[in-house]
Amino acid sequence: MLSKNKIKLVGQLSNKKFRYENSLFLAEGHKCVNELLKSFECVFLAHTEGYELPDGVRKPKDIETVTSQELKQVSLLETPQNVLAIFRIKPNAGNGVKLEGKLTIAIDGVQDAGNMGTIVRIADWFGVEDIVCSFGTVDVYNPKCVQATMGALARVNVRYTDLAEFLKSASEKVSVYTTTLDGSNIYESKLDNNAVVVFGNEGNGISREVRSLCNRSLIIPSFPKERVTSESLNVGVAAAIVIGEFRRQFK
Amino acid sequence: MLSKNKIKLVGQLSNKKFRYENSLFLAEGHKCVNELLKSFECVFLAHTEGYELPDGVRKPKDIETVTSQELKQVSLLETPQNVLAIFRIKPNAGNGVKLEGKLTIAIDGVQDAGNMGTIVRIADWFGVEDIVCSFGTVDVYNPKCVQATMGALARVNVRYTDLAEFLKSASEKVSVYTTTLDGSNIYESKLDNNAVVVFGNEGNGISREVRSLCNRSLIIPSFPKERVTSESLNVGVAAAIVIGEFRRQFK
Repeated sequence: MLSKNKIKLVGQLSNKKFRYENSLFLAEGHKCVNELLKSFECVFLAHTEGYELPDGVRKPKDIETVTSQELKQVSLLETPQNVLAIFRIKPNAGNGVKLEGKLTIAIDGVQDAGNMGTIVRIADWFGVEDIVCSFGTVDVYNPKCVQATMGALARVNVRYTDLAEFLKSASEKVSVYTTTLDGSNIYESKLDNNAVVVFGNEGNGISREVRSLCNRSLIIPSFPKERVTSESLNVGVAAAIVIGEFRRQFK
Repeated sequence: MLSKNKIKLVGQLSNKKFRYENSLFLAEGHKCVNELLKSFECVFLAHTEGYELPDGVRKPKDIETVTSQELKQVSLLETPQNVLAIFRIKPNAGNGVKLEGKLTIAIDGVQDAGNMGTIVRIADWFGVEDIVCSFGTVDVYNPKCVQATMGALARVNVRYTDLAEFLKSASEKVSVYTTTLDGSNIYESKLDNNAVVVFGNEGNGISREVRSLCNRSLIIPSFPKERVTSESLNVGVAAAIVIGEFRRQFK
């Protein structure tokens, strides 16, 4: 049976301050938990009868079999799953990102947990190892965001840092791309795979300071190009198309 | 002041059966409402002081100024906006879709309103006029879905039909593409722009019957190609990359 302390702890993990003070985050569902077990230290795992740990992962020190009812009580999901686990956040090594010879994603202020999760999945699919975020970006260890990554967080390093500082130093070594309405047509540009690509906030795009640190600018053309649409693309969709195009050119 | 009947009507528009029996749907927020006013008949519009109808649209017959408090009471959104409107659903002309010489999207059972909205926005951005959906696909006039289209619904025709019937007839005229794990690398395939591209359900992909009606199969390769990832791409992200690649090849 889950102790009162455990129930309280799970609830507290919705709180960002609490997560970082304790370096802990919550994940639910076997898809997500099983992936994270491969890459994060698990400090507690509660599961219903029938769930089995995947092969080749270290058994969590603290593991408990509970009823569906108990799991439902603590779950933050609308449809509770068969397993819930608490993992240790890895120490943030924001300045240790190797930039040369690869593609890195930078995020300036994305707010929606679903969008952030989508971007982590895109990074995973396209083999981008690092995502560097401004402090104002939604916390990837937010339970909704962990859920939206569908376990991809196990294979992508997400760091929070002073983004302007990071880009100032990055722009001396590699190309720093952004997408703007007056950028070059991405499909007609020879892309440099030695690069950081910056994506901005859902409503406001990237901040003026960050923009001034980007040395290349791209646009995803609408079709036909002359067509006027008042529409813009969702940041997850823009990231998919941009990162996909980098990978197409360097396949 | 909003009458009891109006308040009741707005609430009922969350219900699919009610929407179709009355051929009405709800939209909120000036971004969304102002776009839809250009293309759908508006039967009722309620707005707060300060909202102005955009230029060039027909004034709704029934228009009312209300307080923020009143709007908040009926709003289905967590953060209510300054305007809310009820529009007439256009008659469904599922079999009237012209297929030759263009790209059409087909949807087989997408369930998430956010994903469906994203696909409508992608269609709008890339100039895809028609989306043909199976009856089991989430209703695009669902208020959450309308919201997620951000007004793109004004420029894209979404129809519901017997998808297998539709594809049977379509496959005699144009290429019918799907994405599968054993498909051809999309970046190395010469795509036929005279085509229907089918996207499937979030968990189960496309149904066996629909799959048998597709005559071309594509894969979005992960990077590097050999890399094993247990991850898959979200359907909105897959649609973005696939439709983007069609447009790149036919720019």
